[in-house]
Amino acid sequence: MPNDSSSDQPISAPSLRALPSPLVPLTPLLDGINSPAHLKLLAPEQLPELMEELRGEIVRVASVGGLHLASSLGAAELIVALHYVLSSPQDKILFDVGHQAYAHKILTGRRHLMHTLKKEGGLSGFTRVSESPHDAITVGHASTSLANALGMALARDALGKNHQVAAVIGDGALTGGMALAALNTIGDIQPKMLIIINDNEMSISENVGGLNRFMRGLQVQKWYQDGEDAGKKAVSALSKQLANFMSRAKHSTRHFFDPASINPFSSMGLRYVGPVDGHNITELVWLLQRLKELDGPTVLHVVTKKGKGVELAEADPIKWHGPAKFDPDTYQFAAAQKMYSWSNAFGDAVSELAELDPRLYVITPAMREGSGLVEYSQAHPHRYLDVGIAEEVAVTVAAGMGLQGLRPVVAIYSSFLQRAYDQVLHDVAIENIPVIFAIDRAGIVGADGATHNGVFDLSFLRSIPNMRIGLPKDAYELRAMFKEALRIGGPVAIRYPRGNTPAVDRGTWPEVRWGQWEWLQRPVHSAKTGTDEVVILAGGKALEYAQEAVRDLGNVGLVNARFVKPLDVAMLGDIAATARAIVTVEDNTVVGGFGSAVLEELSRLNISLPVRVLGIPDEFQEHATVERVHALSGMDVSAIRTVLAELGVDVPIGM
Amino acid sequence: MPNDSSSDQPISAPSLRALPSPLVPLTPLLDGINSPAHLKLLAPEQLPELMEELRGEIVRVASVGGLHLASSLGAAELIVALHYVLSSPQDKILFDVGHQAYAHKILTGRRHLMHTLKKEGGLSGFTRVSESPHDAITVGHASTSLANALGMALARDALGKNHQVAAVIGDGALTGGMALAALNTIGDIQPKMLIIINDNEMSISENVGGLNRFMRGLQVQKWYQDGEDAGKKAVSALSKQLANFMSRAKHSTRHFFDPASINPFSSMGLRYVGPVDGHNITELVWLLQRLKELDGPTVLHVVTKKGKGVELAEADPIKWHGPAKFDPDTYQFAAAQKMYSWSNAFGDAVSELAELDPRLYVITPAMREGSGLVEYSQAHPHRYLDVGIAEEVAVTVAAGMGLQGLRPVVAIYSSFLQRAYDQVLHDVAIENIPVIFAIDRAGIVGADGATHNGVFDLSFLRSIPNMRIGLPKDAYELRAMFKEALRIGGPVAIRYPRGNTPAVDRGTWPEVRWGQWEWLQRPVHSAKTGTDEVVILAGGKALEYAQEAVRDLGNVGLVNARFVKPLDVAMLGDIAATARAIVTVEDNTVVGGFGSAVLEELSRLNISLPVRVLGIPDEFQEHATVERVHALSGMDVSAIRTVLAELGVDVPIGM
Repeated sequence: MPNDSSSDQPISAPSLRALPSPLVPLTPLLDGINSPAHLKLLAPEQLPELMEELRGEIVRVASVGGLHLASSLGAAELIVALHYVLSSPQDKILFDVGHQAYAHKILTGRRHLMHTLKKEGGLSGFTRVSESPHDAITVGHASTSLANALGMALARDALGKNHQVAAVIGDGALTGGMALAALNTIGDIQPKMLIIINDNEMSISENVGGLNRFMRGLQVQKWYQDGEDAGKKAVSALSKQLANFMSRAKHSTRHFFDPASINPFSSMGLRYVGPVDGHNITELVWLLQRLKELDGPTVLHVVTKKGKGVELAEADPIKWHGPAKFDPDTYQFAAAQKMYSWSNAFGDAVSELAELDPRLYVITPAMREGSGLVEYSQAHPHRYLDVGIAEEVAVTVAAGMGLQGLRPVVAIYSSFLQRAYDQVLHDVAIENIPVIFAIDRAGIVGADGATHNGVFDLSFLRSIPNMRIGLPKDAYELRAMFKEALRIGGPVAIRYPRGNTPAVDRGTWPEVRWGQWEWLQRPVHSAKTGTDEVVILAGGKALEYAQEAVRDLGNVGLVNARFVKPLDVAMLGDIAATARAIVTVEDNTVVGGFGSAVLEELSRLNISLPVRVLGIPDEFQEHATVERVHALSGMDVSAIRTVLAELGVDVPIGM
Repeated sequence: MPNDSSSDQPISAPSLRALPSPLVPLTPLLDGINSPAHLKLLAPEQLPELMEELRGEIVRVASVGGLHLASSLGAAELIVALHYVLSSPQDKILFDVGHQAYAHKILTGRRHLMHTLKKEGGLSGFTRVSESPHDAITVGHASTSLANALGMALARDALGKNHQVAAVIGDGALTGGMALAALNTIGDIQPKMLIIINDNEMSISENVGGLNRFMRGLQVQKWYQDGEDAGKKAVSALSKQLANFMSRAKHSTRHFFDPASINPFSSMGLRYVGPVDGHNITELVWLLQRLKELDGPTVLHVVTKKGKGVELAEADPIKWHGPAKFDPDTYQFAAAQKMYSWSNAFGDAVSELAELDPRLYVITPAMREGSGLVEYSQAHPHRYLDVGIAEEVAVTVAAGMGLQGLRPVVAIYSSFLQRAYDQVLHDVAIENIPVIFAIDRAGIVGADGATHNGVFDLSFLRSIPNMRIGLPKDAYELRAMFKEALRIGGPVAIRYPRGNTPAVDRGTWPEVRWGQWEWLQRPVHSAKTGTDEVVILAGGKALEYAQEAVRDLGNVGLVNARFVKPLDVAMLGDIAATARAIVTVEDNTVVGGFGSAVLEELSRLNISLPVRVLGIPDEFQEHATVERVHALSGMDVSAIRTVLAELGVDVPIGM
């Protein structure tokens, strides 16, 4: 049994000297593991005990709140088995989405840093190739692991290497288009690789789709037909059948163990094995040891339970997907303040609008809870569609609806809308079809970091003809914009940030005219320069900073630039004709974003004027609090005041 | 038999008075059809004769060159059968990709306009909702029909209507990710609809993928097991089996006719019927009349032959996919001049580079011929991958390869790269993985029109951190840029237009330093203004216009702005410090493109200077010649000279 605490694998994080807190339970096996090599020193019969320690560790890690508990518990045995059988980092282990990989991080020398998860300078909440050689891919979006794994397998073959490539993908991510398309190519190319379906019957919301139905059929047939403990029986049967199978057909591409002679995997040319119990560590190890030797692609269908080992989480895995801070011994949540989020604001608005407009239809790509749509989906089940993790489908389904007279609303996170750029352009915008994009988590999202920051939407949407883009400053303006979007038709994007906003009264419907900005503070005319003073243009989250920045600066102008497309060209022209400088602020990349729109319009107007563009710089922003990333990006209150001072505004110091 | 020539369906095109040319063969049946209603007046036994006429008409139409012949011939019976059985436009008939729909256009009142196909002001080469109420969707990219059809079916149900929705999708497009993901959702939702797989064993290149393998298996089993004319036997057997099936299970969701109890479609909850002979019009009509009554989704698997009815086209459907001008009687091509295209330039460069660098690997999403990769794929079969129509997979496979030490090149059309925006951003750019994007058909493509114009890539790629973007001015510079891309690593995009370019000698490897612009003509210092004269910045195709525009203007500066990211900031700073105005020209939208990059950089440098941005305006550009679209966009030679004159340059009139 290993007790050496040094790692044999390089990692980029600080030294490994830190010890677990003395208050936590004893974890004698886990204490000895700082790399997969240490794990391999355990005897197979020690693994169940290790799982107990590991599961407790995951619960303690996640109890600080905001972490991915349920999925990490569900994947724990699978991860231990993979590291026990394969040899990372020579063998590549890819985790789709990457938020289920806490056990992987703990086993690969990062246990002492788990308290830094998703914090500034700390570990990423996902796998990152820049964080550890054991993190085979950098990820955060779903359904990318299979294409990545195919590329790695082909690279291995091209470079004459001989390692294994194993991708772990959830049943939710599997139904994303690019995962299915990658399966199709893998079936064609037949590279040696393992595709492990971590089937927990969940994406984040409940899982949907025909393939899901099929997989449920497989499960029912194998696990539940003979009563309560059929699982054990099935696995025992599996072991015998598999042994026979192995001995007679090592290089066969035929499936081994499925209820009919053809299933969706085997029909694509993929050897299919399963379903097997994803929490029986002994069986998983036994199975993987045999499967890893096979040539060609093998699909191993593993059934797991989200939240496994924690009764409350098993019972309500949606609630425990990313729980708030809780006590790891009692599982009681700290008394949370009830907050009103932007997602709530959208959910309320759309629920009420659906009463007013029978054409309204809401589509989500597997984000009912996150998008604030639980109430809506219950109140309007016949005008609600969850397409699963398939953003492209969500957008084009909306196009079809819009062509037939409905007014579809696609509720989507900014970062995930990137998946459907062409569908917005080709399927919606060319014919100016009325589809409303409710873009949540726009701008910096904070703890989820680079893969999830929604800082590109202003740029990629703005380049699409016929697109309208609005940024409400609060929940009232959000309601006004959705109502206005229904009036004006065509493709309309309304983007709002992660976080909270003051609640509104139901039934309140303020008016806004699409494309009209709003003066919040008029600039003072400067006798010295003969022009108006500096004017700040900002919308959405950036406006909050701008308002704070000018609170004591009565001479600086401030405009709620709530429409990025079209701009309020008339007001911009007036401002440019009289102001001595413009400052734009946006929670979006400064490349091609709102500031660029202003620069472009001034160029069209043949006006040369100093314009300072503040926003997210042209670099990927790592995880930290939203406010901290904004400060580092040079677009927070202090940065705005600094720029104003550089432009000659008299800015009091120390505010 | 109908002989009324007036249409009962509104169409947006001009009047229907034009008659077929007197030189073409007699088409008595087709002459009577100006709408699907007229088609329905024919007796079923007249349809085979109509097919003869229609096929001749399609050949005559396509003989002018540049049109989609083989696929339109292959889908002809299917289209006639659908219009005979369904009632468009109440029933919705969707054609995936839309280039196979010539028979549909002819039957829906546009026969007299077929000579205008893909010409300025004429019919689109694809279906367009703005062209006819019979065109259910606007399309050009693959794999969108199923999600659109799902949206339409849900809209129908939400609006209490009762029509049919039928999507026709090729086997190539079916393996695109969003088509597979849509199938998954359709299997879950179970709307009433018809999914007709037009299985011609081809996308544009040969088809690939595991599902393709499966479908071939189905075909072999049904069609070829009993010898030559098994097709007819199978269909007869089908009729009897289907009759039984219908009588006993009208509302069943079980499949009817497949070789095993589960197949990829039935396992997703889709009723599967097939495969059936797609050229037996009588059987197709009989079958569709019965299938259209069924509830829930039905997959009808139809086997067709690309180029059907034209021996040469059947034998070489790739050559006859979009043939050049030919004689419709003899099928002889007009003697074509051998041209050297940008695609050839890329193909040559990458073939030679592969000899120099063993890390190079080329990936195409089903565009081997169009991308100039035939020679490469034959010379380097082990470093070549065709993933089928799945751009997302192409990019992420490259990411996986790049992570493992290869230097993958993704050969892709600009318009199709839109499908993989998030994969470029999330899978490649975040970790700065070395992937080279060889972006063909960038800028205006001309005859293929709005869906295919590659005028957004500079904007959407530029907003992605770590991306490098180059625009070679000729094939020499293209070679230099690819070589340089291998040297610098990271994500690199090299974009070049549709069309021809002077050929280069093999083995020639000029040097270029990434990010360095090139003076082509130095500006003259103006004594009058005390500054340098106007300077034009342009790269790629736009540079050709700029060079022509300044040929007789020795005082205007001209820069080969061949790098859009990063800009040559040093040179731009020098120019801005001395020039009195800058003109940018680009074959890309002016929203967020190259001109915006210049504006942004000048803002960062705190330089206020007149900048005029020429490029594609913020509207979708319809089909016409490339030169004509550029002229209409105000970025051709004449437009550049007009802007120079407006800026006070002494421009001789009438050049």
